[in-house]
Amino acid sequence: MQDLKERIRREGKVLPGNIIKVDGFLNHRVDIRLMESIADEFAKYFDVGNITMVLTAEASGIALAAICAQKYRVPMVFAKKAKSDNIEGGLYQSEIFSYTYKRKVTQILSKEWLTASDRVLIVDDFMANGEAVRGLCDLVSQAGAELMGIGIAVEKGFQGGGDRLRAMDVNYHALAVIESADENGIVFREDGDQ
Amino acid sequence: MQDLKERIRREGKVLPGNIIKVDGFLNHRVDIRLMESIADEFAKYFDVGNITMVLTAEASGIALAAICAQKYRVPMVFAKKAKSDNIEGGLYQSEIFSYTYKRKVTQILSKEWLTASDRVLIVDDFMANGEAVRGLCDLVSQAGAELMGIGIAVEKGFQGGGDRLRAMDVNYHALAVIESADENGIVFREDGDQ
Repeated sequence: MQDLKERIRREGKVLPGNIIKVDGFLNHRVDIRLMESIADEFAKYFDVGNITMVLTAEASGIALAAICAQKYRVPMVFAKKAKSDNIEGGLYQSEIFSYTYKRKVTQILSKEWLTASDRVLIVDDFMANGEAVRGLCDLVSQAGAELMGIGIAVEKGFQGGGDRLRAMDVNYHALAVIESADENGIVFREDGDQ
Repeated sequence: MQDLKERIRREGKVLPGNIIKVDGFLNHRVDIRLMESIADEFAKYFDVGNITMVLTAEASGIALAAICAQKYRVPMVFAKKAKSDNIEGGLYQSEIFSYTYKRKVTQILSKEWLTASDRVLIVDDFMANGEAVRGLCDLVSQAGAELMGIGIAVEKGFQGGGDRLRAMDVNYHALAVIESADENGIVFREDGDQ
């Protein structure tokens, strides 16, 4: 997705430790017009007319997932990080390692809002090691729901999460795959190689 | 806002401790059509043509804020809970007490994305004690930005957050104010009393 890559090139910053900061338009301040373009682009890769929900993980994926759900005319559900006591009763749970928080995090999702009859599109704004998405796939699997696809806006291609999904039998697509990011700048994977 | 109140009456559940669960349409599974109606309703109370951004707090306000920002054609910014090391440099910070997490939480916001020239509409899906909103107001004040209004979808009117804001010189509006919630059901404050 050319305009997303342009935006990352122009405004993204590379911090020590291969951290790519795109917080001016993706995950702190959010450019909603760009989210709309991303949602439109996902619609080329996934059968969005046939899904029952968009699923994402708290927190930064929520804005993109909301705009996707709006365009595809389905509800949006976000898995929560366990801690709140506001959720009663039956929960799906998945354990993931959060590299942001540097510890294990439990994703929870109420069994009321994901069932075996659901056809789920998972979306997230950003993927590195892919732990959040792995946890979401696990929740979908626990529910016996159908995973229709996984759409990621920006993938850090050198951290393995995306390649692991590409090796699996799942409709995975990332719109901008960063091959390397260092003091020399940001290099994207060629579209054909995604 | 009549249809929001109807929805709460029909689908909301009251849990012990005056917890009101509206997670089927507001803050776990999110009904995006309802978010659009709420955003349209806010536009009656706030000068949305004259704001530069919509501000909310991580996490559950993000979906509503994204839809508001889309409709008002401005960026959406969400204050983060401090913990991530992905944000470098200059930050506004506010200390709030989270009743959900039962501990102090630091909200952070990059100085890059909120400046003295901003005219800010704060929105959130839910307000009880109002700590999250108090923190957001504090961030706006630290930036020297102009607070154009505060829009809340559902307020727990008996927990003081909303009344504190009504007593201040701020354009505050909540679309559904819950006066009481117990085993006898949910009672809303009359519209004229908001």
